Amino acid sequence: MTVQTKPAAVTTGPIVGSHKIYTSPEGRPDIRVPFREIPLEPTAREDAFRAYDTSGPYTDAAATIQLEAGLTPIRAPWLARRALEAVSPREVKPEDNGNIGDDKLVAACPAHAIVLAGLPGQPVTQYEYARAGIITEEMIYVAHRENLGRTAMLPGAEERRADGEDFDAEMPAFVTPEFVRSEIARGRAIIPANINHPELEPVIIGRNFLVKINANIGNSAVTSSAADEVEKLVWAIRWGGDTVMDLSTGRNIHNIRSWIMRNSPVPIGTVPLYQALEKVGGNPDLLDWEVFRDTLIEQAEQGVDYFTIHAGVRLAYVPLTAKRTTGIVSRGGSIMARWCLAHHKESFLYEHFDDICDIMRTYDVSFSLGDGLRPGCIADANDAAQFAELETLGELTKRAWAKGCQVMIEGPGHVPMHKIKVNMTKQLAECGEAPFYTLGPLTTDIAPGYDHITSAIGAAMIGWFGTAMLCYVTPKEHLGLPNRDDVKTGVITYKIAAHAADLAKGHPSAKLRDDAISRARFEFRWMDQFNLGLDPDTARKYHDETLPKDAHKVAHFCSMCGPKFCSMKISHDIRADTERMAGMEEKREEFVAKGSSLYLPETADAKGNDAD
Amino acid sequence: MTVQTKPAAVTTGPIVGSHKIYTSPEGRPDIRVPFREIPLEPTAREDAFRAYDTSGPYTDAAATIQLEAGLTPIRAPWLARRALEAVSPREVKPEDNGNIGDDKLVAACPAHAIVLAGLPGQPVTQYEYARAGIITEEMIYVAHRENLGRTAMLPGAEERRADGEDFDAEMPAFVTPEFVRSEIARGRAIIPANINHPELEPVIIGRNFLVKINANIGNSAVTSSAADEVEKLVWAIRWGGDTVMDLSTGRNIHNIRSWIMRNSPVPIGTVPLYQALEKVGGNPDLLDWEVFRDTLIEQAEQGVDYFTIHAGVRLAYVPLTAKRTTGIVSRGGSIMARWCLAHHKESFLYEHFDDICDIMRTYDVSFSLGDGLRPGCIADANDAAQFAELETLGELTKRAWAKGCQVMIEGPGHVPMHKIKVNMTKQLAECGEAPFYTLGPLTTDIAPGYDHITSAIGAAMIGWFGTAMLCYVTPKEHLGLPNRDDVKTGVITYKIAAHAADLAKGHPSAKLRDDAISRARFEFRWMDQFNLGLDPDTARKYHDETLPKDAHKVAHFCSMCGPKFCSMKISHDIRADTERMAGMEEKREEFVAKGSSLYLPETADAKGNDAD
Repeated sequence: MTVQTKPAAVTTGPIVGSHKIYTSPEGRPDIRVPFREIPLEPTAREDAFRAYDTSGPYTDAAATIQLEAGLTPIRAPWLARRALEAVSPREVKPEDNGNIGDDKLVAACPAHAIVLAGLPGQPVTQYEYARAGIITEEMIYVAHRENLGRTAMLPGAEERRADGEDFDAEMPAFVTPEFVRSEIARGRAIIPANINHPELEPVIIGRNFLVKINANIGNSAVTSSAADEVEKLVWAIRWGGDTVMDLSTGRNIHNIRSWIMRNSPVPIGTVPLYQALEKVGGNPDLLDWEVFRDTLIEQAEQGVDYFTIHAGVRLAYVPLTAKRTTGIVSRGGSIMARWCLAHHKESFLYEHFDDICDIMRTYDVSFSLGDGLRPGCIADANDAAQFAELETLGELTKRAWAKGCQVMIEGPGHVPMHKIKVNMTKQLAECGEAPFYTLGPLTTDIAPGYDHITSAIGAAMIGWFGTAMLCYVTPKEHLGLPNRDDVKTGVITYKIAAHAADLAKGHPSAKLRDDAISRARFEFRWMDQFNLGLDPDTARKYHDETLPKDAHKVAHFCSMCGPKFCSMKISHDIRADTERMAGMEEKREEFVAKGSSLYLPETADAKGNDAD
Repeated sequence: MTVQTKPAAVTTGPIVGSHKIYTSPEGRPDIRVPFREIPLEPTAREDAFRAYDTSGPYTDAAATIQLEAGLTPIRAPWLARRALEAVSPREVKPEDNGNIGDDKLVAACPAHAIVLAGLPGQPVTQYEYARAGIITEEMIYVAHRENLGRTAMLPGAEERRADGEDFDAEMPAFVTPEFVRSEIARGRAIIPANINHPELEPVIIGRNFLVKINANIGNSAVTSSAADEVEKLVWAIRWGGDTVMDLSTGRNIHNIRSWIMRNSPVPIGTVPLYQALEKVGGNPDLLDWEVFRDTLIEQAEQGVDYFTIHAGVRLAYVPLTAKRTTGIVSRGGSIMARWCLAHHKESFLYEHFDDICDIMRTYDVSFSLGDGLRPGCIADANDAAQFAELETLGELTKRAWAKGCQVMIEGPGHVPMHKIKVNMTKQLAECGEAPFYTLGPLTTDIAPGYDHITSAIGAAMIGWFGTAMLCYVTPKEHLGLPNRDDVKTGVITYKIAAHAADLAKGHPSAKLRDDAISRARFEFRWMDQFNLGLDPDTARKYHDETLPKDAHKVAHFCSMCGPKFCSMKISHDIRADTERMAGMEEKREEFVAKGSSLYLPETADAKGNDAD
């Protein structure tokens, strides 16, 4: 007997003021890429604004969501044409679900899933296809997605590129599938896309694309409902999570994962070490290669898209952490450090790295090389332990590439602003430009309860410098488990950081949204201003706290200054005046030419008065 | 008949987990400087942590607060020794309080205040004293305050300085009164301290000191209680506001200001133009020098410490804004632009700038030269209008110095990350290193409801680059009036930005707090972790949501990972192990010397596997 999971109430329906559309790349009507379209008020005389959309079918008013059936496996036809074999799946063992009693066992998701595996000598991973010069459907998909569905370069794209500072990134003004292929082939981008995750809407992670964000979810000890866990996923991607890591550690972990995988349109990442540790009763000393290997296969067959592998925590580096202010703060890192010390042996993850590569290649699970020795406080930032590990991650990146795997690299942590840039520079150099995936970094330790903010500062900066994906931090960091509001706050905060980074890099489409909302603001199109924002509900709620009436949604002022003092209103008058005095600008130039003091700063006088 | 204002309930008592102390500079027991001391748990074996304290007597458990009496005029004995004269105050006019009917008039604060004025030929301003080589009590006070009451350089101060990147600032490892004097004399710092604000606890604003933050308050249209307005001030400084700007625009403005001034321990700034506009019925075209001059004197006599003066909005610059996406977004800027256009004349603020200087010098009101043409969106950042005005502000800075005035410069606004640095560099160059005082900047326009975060990113960066004071932004920015929670969120967010900036600059005391809280975190001293944070109440509340019991305040784990997975706990084991294997580090070096592969990254192998 197992606990029945109801076809539960996850959040569905479009975000207010928008709707889902799908468009297809030229010549590929079979590939349908989702976007979120935000219609504007008629007075705007602008097309609906089109935004990148991570939310999956859940925000599609036309979609029917049935968790038991799982999402439509849109990749199945693509995968069917590849040299893959259906294999008999590994048998589920009691320890996969934490040896939970039958009475408390959550049933697995009944959605049908054939387990696929790659064949020796045939390309499986996106990296292998890219190296072989083959453009996959996933590559076509993400190219179209990154272009926001445009089939040609947008006007002004090159100017916006030139206006940014991208630190030698090479973002194109228009993304072609061939560009995607070349970026993957040189290891500079990945599409985490397990061949056993056909429900995936592919997403690309690399510094020459839009900066992505990850949200973490995880079951708490008391959770028993798979639907609750799926809802966490749905909620996180609704607000903009590009990938989701499932950091669950409790019972029912295998079966709940099946619900998540079958119902996730975004790449799912895990830390297999957590489940392996559960299987040996929570004692790190009892871990070994066999239990770890078994867990990799278990999760890979379920469709997990990327694994955090802490293979850079080597025995020799552990003593480097002994004098740290906060030691090792990565769970995976501390487990492996503990194992190395207990056995006084080199890490089995490092020793078996090639074997791990072989497994991950077989299913195209991407590496997220874990930074087990990342600093947990400002005092430990950029220390010998952290950089020693980063150098090893560089070594492992190249070994994984040689095995045909896709790789990204995890980064810190807690880093003060002036030490952020060197992390990015060193990562690019050591890891051959493999995508960097950072947690924050938090730029100070002194604000528990506000670490989404301490870290958004660092995240925006490192995203600008070249980090490809930012792992969110919620207000509960260091204090407790995030609730629903915390997850939303974390996701929105990180969308801000990612977008600020895109803007600063000169991403060719980033500024379009800022411009659209600024026009709405200047023209007092309040509904457009709310709807073009990252969180229309909160924006409207805040506005309505002081000006609740519908009439105020078209009012040419807000509660901050009121009608009399509204600078934007005065600006409109000024614009009208200036236009009336059409010749004024020319007149000014004329005056300047004549050297009239009325129109020029009196620089000469000023210098005469210089107090220095 | 006037409305009686009750001796109202403002927030008093220490912030949880701390208490007020006062210490004195060597040889000056008459000067008592407040600090907040946070005692740590006995197991910490550390002295109580001492923090900078902006909150005034309100957090002093021993203080008696009576709003009618005002705060103790601690500067009165200092001022009494200076060459100042008591003058008969300007008579209060009905328009000062918005011509409000007697039945609705709020009574002025009855606290006694003699109106002082400077004498011709005698130093009045801190700038004049500094130029004359004289160290004032205010200078001694702020030196002691910046040193957190230490009478000698702290161990490690020079190392912490050297560890930062300060972009050619010249922060000393220990602040002497003579250093303060020299910074003020060269215009690189100010102490906003009106001689008619004897209740002030002096604070210094300059790039070689701790980064400061400002919080804005202002009456809403319906407010009638002076106590409510004082509470806004008390609340903002409780959480860390270093200065407060009173942006009120409604009725009773003069009398409410009297309550604020007499009860404020922090410098109060205003925009006199707002009140001047009220006096002419809200029509910018009707403004003139006389009404503005009268308002300056009115507010200067009340004790306002700094005035925003938008004298850089010159007639010739107005057309430069016509093609902007959001025009002019500064209220003061738009009022002056409107005036210039309506009269087609040069700004009367610019024309009368020397007269303004003479008035402000007389009372030592500091200039905050307003950036009336700051960009209101990403699209308008760093444009011709903004930089033309900044150049004029540079000219005016030097004219104000020549007149003996203290000056700071207001800055943007909305600026994407890659365009922030040039703002700072240009400001330093144009304005002779006069302190920069910026609003944010907001690094994207797309997150209404979260602009405390979009702007904290920019604020932290520009603070690092050299901005002396950061003007806060609340979550309600662009949407409505901030409530109590919004004000607290805005202040805490900006304390984070300012502290992150101090850390990155290598301020000699900034890192002490990060280190203290990180030690508490590593040692599971939960109460210390809460209390050392910027907001102990919120930190504790978040922790208690999942682990409410008192026993959990000493538990060696938190709800995030639980006891089994706690990396910090494992780190303690590792530390113990490492210490046991005392010789391990030496052993490692030995192995390295021998070239053992167990202890060294296998770089040679890795290169052989390089997939590139």
